[in-house]
Amino acid sequence: MPRLKLIVAYTGSGFCGWQFQPGMRTVQGCLEDVLSRVCGQGVRVHGSGRTDSGVHALGQVAHVDVPESKSNLDWQKVFNALLPPDVAVLSAERVADSFHARYQVRVKEYRYHLWVESRYVLPQRRPFVWPVGPLGLDKLRAGIRVLQGRHDFAAFQNQGTAVKTTVREVKSIECFSVSNPESPGHDSEVIISFVATGFLKQMVRNMVAALVQVGKSRLDLPGLQAILASKDRTRAPATAPAQGLCLYRVWY
Amino acid sequence: MPRLKLIVAYTGSGFCGWQFQPGMRTVQGCLEDVLSRVCGQGVRVHGSGRTDSGVHALGQVAHVDVPESKSNLDWQKVFNALLPPDVAVLSAERVADSFHARYQVRVKEYRYHLWVESRYVLPQRRPFVWPVGPLGLDKLRAGIRVLQGRHDFAAFQNQGTAVKTTVREVKSIECFSVSNPESPGHDSEVIISFVATGFLKQMVRNMVAALVQVGKSRLDLPGLQAILASKDRTRAPATAPAQGLCLYRVWY
Repeated sequence: MPRLKLIVAYTGSGFCGWQFQPGMRTVQGCLEDVLSRVCGQGVRVHGSGRTDSGVHALGQVAHVDVPESKSNLDWQKVFNALLPPDVAVLSAERVADSFHARYQVRVKEYRYHLWVESRYVLPQRRPFVWPVGPLGLDKLRAGIRVLQGRHDFAAFQNQGTAVKTTVREVKSIECFSVSNPESPGHDSEVIISFVATGFLKQMVRNMVAALVQVGKSRLDLPGLQAILASKDRTRAPATAPAQGLCLYRVWY
Repeated sequence: MPRLKLIVAYTGSGFCGWQFQPGMRTVQGCLEDVLSRVCGQGVRVHGSGRTDSGVHALGQVAHVDVPESKSNLDWQKVFNALLPPDVAVLSAERVADSFHARYQVRVKEYRYHLWVESRYVLPQRRPFVWPVGPLGLDKLRAGIRVLQGRHDFAAFQNQGTAVKTTVREVKSIECFSVSNPESPGHDSEVIISFVATGFLKQMVRNMVAALVQVGKSRLDLPGLQAILASKDRTRAPATAPAQGLCLYRVWY
């Protein structure tokens, strides 16, 4: 059975996340629907990992084994003809059978979009941002330096998934402000990019929530360090909303 | 009654256009709803002009006379607290009573977004683009030079509004390709910007439809010139869809 590597983009607003759940609209479910229609049999889609309900993706990766008899189809064309408008296959390439979308991930990049203009939220950007008002970028960068690197991130992990260890290595966190083509001259959006070999459940959204407090001078650096060192989820701020988050890229 | 100049952004997908119509969801209707709730009386909103159903705006301009007793309100805050998420007031400033949003327009800029990647449409951009596949930018620019300037644009006017003359001056048409932050390195979108003192009904969308035919080598320059000279709407291609169009800016 020929193996395909898919790069998948979606807007999360209309999905109950990536992972298949009976009776729910999920991205994996939509992809598997197309495969079962075209192949006449159930075909499993293996993602690089789940994304939560409401989280967007520009570079989710998945692999799938299609039946030999369908191996000559132009699979990108097939998917994009049959998928709903809020999900698209950006590429579909034949890969070796040894490729595994989940087990062979080297690093993943998530991007979180903050809307920092306090007077309005551009309707065109609303589904993709968390409006937080003005932020001190220098403060934000100082907070980032606290979280970057190898740490026990237990304070930034939400309950729900059993893991062997809550130690993770965050290779880089960067932030940059962007002026939308829509609002020239105004830096209305700040993007925080997180690159790591692995993330705990809602870890990015929990780090973002804490960094925003730092950027707004409501939490100082010793306070952030203390939260990290405490390994106590109850001491960190509430999880940032899903809609600002995007799975940007997966490296193998 | 103090006069305010509003700059308004909206996504057109959920609106039956700008102009108030009883029982329909319109942008003018939403703004007037806020005013009547806050002022306890009907207050008219005067736009720079209509936009069609489905057309977006980043810089629509309107003026409104608020009752003296409400003149000290922070109107931008009031609007953005009470408006639905698909419309926002980007600025609200006090102007002289002589300012008129419609009669004093100098020029307007519309931008039309073409999606030129043929293998997929990014879900994040789908509501704002017309997917047309690959285009020759040089051909497109040559077509633009035919339409630019002062002409009788009768061939590019749809029926429905009586006008004294179908002569208009299109001061500039420019096109440029943009690589989305979402698809780095790929120039997946081409924007055509139109600046004119006035436009006929659906004139931009009709010009875009013809320019796309030129960019795809399905219509040559003599053919485009012949359509323009014919003043015959039936000779020009069908109107481009509303969703690619955005009222970008109005100059006074």
